[in-house]
Amino acid sequence: MEKFYRAKFINSLSGIKSANLIGSVNTNGVHNLCIVSSCFHLGANPPLIGMILRPETIDRKRHTLDNLRANKVFTINHVNEKIYQKAHQTSANYNEGVSEFEEVGLTPKILSDFKAPFVKESSVQIACIVREIQKLEINKTFLVVGEIERVILDESKVKDDGHIDVSSSIGVTGLDSYHRTEKITRLSYAKPGLMPKTII
Amino acid sequence: MEKFYRAKFINSLSGIKSANLIGSVNTNGVHNLCIVSSCFHLGANPPLIGMILRPETIDRKRHTLDNLRANKVFTINHVNEKIYQKAHQTSANYNEGVSEFEEVGLTPKILSDFKAPFVKESSVQIACIVREIQKLEINKTFLVVGEIERVILDESKVKDDGHIDVSSSIGVTGLDSYHRTEKITRLSYAKPGLMPKTII
Repeated sequence: MEKFYRAKFINSLSGIKSANLIGSVNTNGVHNLCIVSSCFHLGANPPLIGMILRPETIDRKRHTLDNLRANKVFTINHVNEKIYQKAHQTSANYNEGVSEFEEVGLTPKILSDFKAPFVKESSVQIACIVREIQKLEINKTFLVVGEIERVILDESKVKDDGHIDVSSSIGVTGLDSYHRTEKITRLSYAKPGLMPKTII
Repeated sequence: MEKFYRAKFINSLSGIKSANLIGSVNTNGVHNLCIVSSCFHLGANPPLIGMILRPETIDRKRHTLDNLRANKVFTINHVNEKIYQKAHQTSANYNEGVSEFEEVGLTPKILSDFKAPFVKESSVQIACIVREIQKLEINKTFLVVGEIERVILDESKVKDDGHIDVSSSIGVTGLDSYHRTEKITRLSYAKPGLMPKTII
């Protein structure tokens, strides 16, 4: 397969992915923002999210990776339908020292006790501490493990049992296709011999 | 937070996840099928998909993990709206030696030259070779890296540029909430100083 054809084809195979903006800061205090579709749940206790970052190449520096190594913090911000075009634009190859917030027109939200910027326009904002950055030898990508330090969201999104309604957050398939999601139903905890019921 | 509240809350934070059925086989030839929401794109060349499997506990064996260790193959099958209740039911704690295909009413599709069963009712079926099983010390989960060996799908889903229309595949948020997806648009490759355009 041709390189770009292959990238689009293989990227589509894992199905729908969450669209998130990763906020970080470099040692000079310059903010960085990049869209990723590689965040995944890693565990609830401790609360961990994993993320895959692509390898550096000669002509493409990876500012987020540098920032995470230097400052050990980042934010995860859900992308919603109002900001997905700006979010997509953060994937352009901006020079170091340029803030993608300014370039694409998103607003950094700074808290006095957390070094990395949040995205004000995002409805689910998560602060993470870097626990591990591991190079996966098989293809030179990096597995970043972040521990969730705080979560900022409208409390009305949180159901009585802890489930969060993230239906305003959007997903991506392949490299560039954005999707809203529509809830079908929630299903009860599965037990052998008993088909699951719709809940809530 | 209480244990189940926490599990539902933290599981929701990574946003929409793809719903996939993992097909495997044990050394006695018994098929296993389990739903996972932890598959993620790891790289296009070589074509790799990652997946997180939960740790074993005294009262909960992990048959899929055992099968992957023993036979080094598995299948990934996208869940669609016609089969999501059956797919969910595979998460029940069935005994070893029981085929979840039979228990939930899905059809194993067997190819003569691949050991693990596919799900006939799934519209995107992927065969993977196990390349790595790594225990993540931070929370004792397992990172499985699979190399895509073949893909079975309706060719009409594949666009001219390689992108696959996976809109019939569904997503999951948290532990138990199922979602169909609706395409907003595809956006062109992002370049500095130029806002992305809608494509196709």
